Amino acid sequence: MKMTHIFFIICTLFIISTHAAVQDFCVADLKAPESPAGYACKPETIVTVDDFVSTSLRFSGNTSNIIKAAVSPAFAAQLLGLNGLGLSIARLDLAPGGVVPMHTHPGGSELLLVIQGTITAGFISSANSVYVKTLKKGDLMVFPQGLLHFQVNAGGVTAVAFASFSSASPGLQILDFALFANNLPSKLVETTTFLDDATVKALKGVLGGTG
Amino acid sequence: MKMTHIFFIICTLFIISTHAAVQDFCVADLKAPESPAGYACKPETIVTVDDFVSTSLRFSGNTSNIIKAAVSPAFAAQLLGLNGLGLSIARLDLAPGGVVPMHTHPGGSELLLVIQGTITAGFISSANSVYVKTLKKGDLMVFPQGLLHFQVNAGGVTAVAFASFSSASPGLQILDFALFANNLPSKLVETTTFLDDATVKALKGVLGGTG
Amino acid sequence: MKMTHIFFIICTLFIISTHAAVQDFCVADLKAPESPAGYACKPETIVTVDDFVSTSLRFSGNTSNIIKAAVSPAFAAQLLGLNGLGLSIARLDLAPGGVVPMHTHPGGSELLLVIQGTITAGFISSANSVYVKTLKKGDLMVFPQGLLHFQVNAGGVTAVAFASFSSASPGLQILDFALFANNLPSKLVETTTFLDDATVKALKGVLGGTG
Amino acid sequence: MKMTHIFFIICTLFIISTHAAVQDFCVADLKAPESPAGYACKPETIVTVDDFVSTSLRFSGNTSNIIKAAVSPAFAAQLLGLNGLGLSIARLDLAPGGVVPMHTHPGGSELLLVIQGTITAGFISSANSVYVKTLKKGDLMVFPQGLLHFQVNAGGVTAVAFASFSSASPGLQILDFALFANNLPSKLVETTTFLDDATVKALKGVLGGTG
Amino acid sequence: MKMTHIFFIICTLFIISTHAAVQDFCVADLKAPESPAGYACKPETIVTVDDFVSTSLRFSGNTSNIIKAAVSPAFAAQLLGLNGLGLSIARLDLAPGGVVPMHTHPGGSELLLVIQGTITAGFISSANSVYVKTLKKGDLMVFPQGLLHFQVNAGGVTAVAFASFSSASPGLQILDFALFANNLPSKLVETTTFLDDATVKALKGVLGGTG
Amino acid sequence: MKMTHIFFIICTLFIISTHAAVQDFCVADLKAPESPAGYACKPETIVTVDDFVSTSLRFSGNTSNIIKAAVSPAFAAQLLGLNGLGLSIARLDLAPGGVVPMHTHPGGSELLLVIQGTITAGFISSANSVYVKTLKKGDLMVFPQGLLHFQVNAGGVTAVAFASFSSASPGLQILDFALFANNLPSKLVETTTFLDDATVKALKGVLGGTG
Repeated sequence: MKMTHIFFIICTLFIISTHAAVQDFCVADLKAPESPAGYACKPETIVTVDDFVSTSLRFSGNTSNIIKAAVSPAFAAQLLGLNGLGLSIARLDLAPGGVVPMHTHPGGSELLLVIQGTITAGFISSANSVYVKTLKKGDLMVFPQGLLHFQVNAGGVTAVAFASFSSASPGLQILDFALFANNLPSKLVETTTFLDDATVKALKGVLGGTG
Repeated sequence: MKMTHIFFIICTLFIISTHAAVQDFCVADLKAPESPAGYACKPETIVTVDDFVSTSLRFSGNTSNIIKAAVSPAFAAQLLGLNGLGLSIARLDLAPGGVVPMHTHPGGSELLLVIQGTITAGFISSANSVYVKTLKKGDLMVFPQGLLHFQVNAGGVTAVAFASFSSASPGLQILDFALFANNLPSKLVETTTFLDDATVKALKGVLGGTG
Repeated sequence: MKMTHIFFIICTLFIISTHAAVQDFCVADLKAPESPAGYACKPETIVTVDDFVSTSLRFSGNTSNIIKAAVSPAFAAQLLGLNGLGLSIARLDLAPGGVVPMHTHPGGSELLLVIQGTITAGFISSANSVYVKTLKKGDLMVFPQGLLHFQVNAGGVTAVAFASFSSASPGLQILDFALFANNLPSKLVETTTFLDDATVKALKGVLGGTG
Repeated sequence: MKMTHIFFIICTLFIISTHAAVQDFCVADLKAPESPAGYACKPETIVTVDDFVSTSLRFSGNTSNIIKAAVSPAFAAQLLGLNGLGLSIARLDLAPGGVVPMHTHPGGSELLLVIQGTITAGFISSANSVYVKTLKKGDLMVFPQGLLHFQVNAGGVTAVAFASFSSASPGLQILDFALFANNLPSKLVETTTFLDDATVKALKGVLGGTG
Repeated sequence: MKMTHIFFIICTLFIISTHAAVQDFCVADLKAPESPAGYACKPETIVTVDDFVSTSLRFSGNTSNIIKAAVSPAFAAQLLGLNGLGLSIARLDLAPGGVVPMHTHPGGSELLLVIQGTITAGFISSANSVYVKTLKKGDLMVFPQGLLHFQVNAGGVTAVAFASFSSASPGLQILDFALFANNLPSKLVETTTFLDDATVKALKGVLGGTG
Repeated sequence: MKMTHIFFIICTLFIISTHAAVQDFCVADLKAPESPAGYACKPETIVTVDDFVSTSLRFSGNTSNIIKAAVSPAFAAQLLGLNGLGLSIARLDLAPGGVVPMHTHPGGSELLLVIQGTITAGFISSANSVYVKTLKKGDLMVFPQGLLHFQVNAGGVTAVAFASFSSASPGLQILDFALFANNLPSKLVETTTFLDDATVKALKGVLGGTG
């Protein structure tokens, strides 16, 4: 008899729960059209725990490249459950001599956590002040939204760090790529950066830029 | 002749009005995919005044259940015109002895208005302070977002209240349901709540939980 | 001995709770300078349950005035615990023949709940569509942010309603007051509303406007 | 050989860039369903520079109408690249004697820039204070969100201004249109504005209102 | 001579930079009154790189307590440069058998990163679905805002994890503390949780609650 | 007698208006501590229309400098009434040959309006796509938040433009200043930009950088 009563509650209250659930999360459906607020939501009925879990950052990225670094994101496009939650992360692997070149995240602030090795990191503010620090395992550093910043391996061993972001899709604009790895005409690059033609053409050559 | 001029204005200015209207409201289309910002919008051409009106809270909910209480929401899923406006409401009916058990709204703050009877309500803060008060007809109480709170009928007659929320879909997580009315393994419940096995199994039994 | 251990947790975890609590709520300190996000916060140590409770809307407002209506707000300035929570409420008393004149809330959407009597309410959208409905006890109506709307007693008895808002300080701009109860020069009122001089001057006279 | 290495970076890092780009912008697709956050996004692959450029405000609007004024918007519905960016603009042309009648923007604040002629502009606050100023070429004036405001040509020549908004779709509610150019019953207009029947019917006649 | 010209730019453009910088960051001044948006900002002139860096999570927390766990936050109150940036982090140390008991963060979503050992974590949604997973080093799991969740050491060695949050002050409400470690009357706890008096009193005894 | 009644309304309703006004606007008080939401608010009693008006952009800036350009902001720090409204503007004067060098606004999107002359403008997206266009008088171009962009005079006469922003304090980070006009060590600049030592040192010399 008690059980019958209980089922009354379940019936009564579950109506709310079920409808309200739409606001708990919005697991990304990468195939549907996006909105300014992020990806469309998967129907909740097909959401599973694996939409909230990522195992893809278990292993180090491939640092056999010119910057001796790898950046592996878990943004909403990779970890679907992050969509709409204003949060994401990326793994940084920096071999000895490795560098994450000068870049910005147009859409979010960053909080760097070093979990192995030593990293020198820094950012420059709108007021043109420079904030640089050498970080050890367990150290944190904040990079406010949209400001130019960088990370450099400052030790003799591979460094590993995780960068958290205040956006599920913070974006990434790497300075050298924006200037030298596309078809932005050399003349415009030179005019707007004060770099000389030889420098611009050389870097365009190396980074695959045209024009 | 004046009329002709007037129609010039109408032609000129209506272009703006028509396009701009997209921002006035976004009546929920429950069939289209959602976004992190809420439900998709019905085409404005099929919106009517009834999308902004609800008569479903006119009558008291059924309190013939174990908690002697009924909660009837008018969230965006029920009152479609609320979608995207950051606001919703629910009706609470508490028969004598009735209780809305300990719960949270993950997505919004609550403002309770008692319109009949006497209710003892309270919440607990992150700093673990307790805020409890007995409310009469016409009284208001604030429950900040995400904090555990409850309402109990404190009089001999049925109490009625309306709870406004700072979200069109504030969500509802009832503590006992979250712990005892699903398949969360008893062992995990015990480990993470310090409750003993007998208590957990008993409540799971009553509330229909498994595992 | 167990107790000792327990106090370890309390010590360890309370550090977090205490600091984090700043985000649970921000009870308004009306004496300190405001910010664009609302009033400054009272120190949490002096916050009590009464900061979250209001008894001021228990009784009907005085409707012995020309509009036979009273509007009694519980915004952040009156119910301090609402500050920063994006939510507030106001009580409407409408004697027979009473009217809340055409107005807007620049800072929030409104959800009207009729708890006594009959009210005809309506709003006009940016697209110039009219949404009007007569509401009975228990009925709800949504007024999207910033749009002109009104409420009129549509029955023979006093009507009472509560209007919830999606802002702790939604503002209120009553059309006739904005046009006729201040020092906005009559010439400017006439030019910008197409009303004639006699009408403007008469209403200025009644409502105490000058110029 | 260096080139090979470089392509490693491009491969490694472009994965991020490509996915992250979703957050840079969301060019409006006017045909897909909207969300509370704005229009759906066009696929980035079909976005071109022309989605971010408008040439439609090059020429003056047609002021041969009763208000001797033209308002030409570049909101998200017209300049698709603005969608989701919280920003838009409109061009105002005011012939001698021209006026932009009393109106509000429910969804955004306005910043007016005069680029030709002289304009008297003003707004009324919730506290019923009047803020009026005569502006010359190069002058700016702020109109906070949702408040009644107006612009009047105060010189002998055509004035031109651009109004920026803090929303991609700020909306526009022209007072006289809301009151007199739709089917809102005359009786309701009169009751809620204190205007007499003759005034209301006359203006309804002129502006094409019914009821 | 070129140098002279250059200084013209510096003079001209620095005016902007200096004023604009207010928006780059707002390093917390813990002594000034807070606002709903967070702590007040330190004057930029006294901000140093150390306001953006924390070394306090280098070492493991003390897990010699009943839950065999330690939670060490770097919220805005600890890492001042996070204030206003919508981002923070905490370190979790879980000795063998350690557990972070059932809790919520009222103000933010969480992204857990395991950097050592094995952790079983889970959350329960508003729809009462259970999402549980056992995570290894390098794995991530998302906990949407405001939902009950927990972490348990699932291996034989100490586990370490970092939890990122989508708020600079996400708050923390530990279920057992909220119910049993304050002065919330036992009767109210029992009524609102369905727990029996013996259980409530026992846990109150252990956790230091009164009433 | 009617007048007496009217004063009842005024008394009744003004209570609301007065308190609510806090939300209409928050004119910046540059002397009080800031919050993450912007400057503190001046008391409303000392606010005048001049807080909402700026005449400082009437005249062209001084372009007698190496970039032949001037940027004159009307951000919240200059036009106090903009504080908290999510909107601001800046005037650009570009003499023949003038250039606004590659830069970002970390805190807001930009909408450029050309009012004289011809300007070639462009931005680069996170996906490394280039969007460039030559704009004439009356043309508009959107630069989404945080992305590198530039403006160059593309004609033989002085060009004038106004840039609106979706923030009252959008910030400004000029690439060359961030890299070469401060004390960021040359070695770090070189490592993180791939520029050679000679180039870095030369530009540091010209722009006044050290280290």
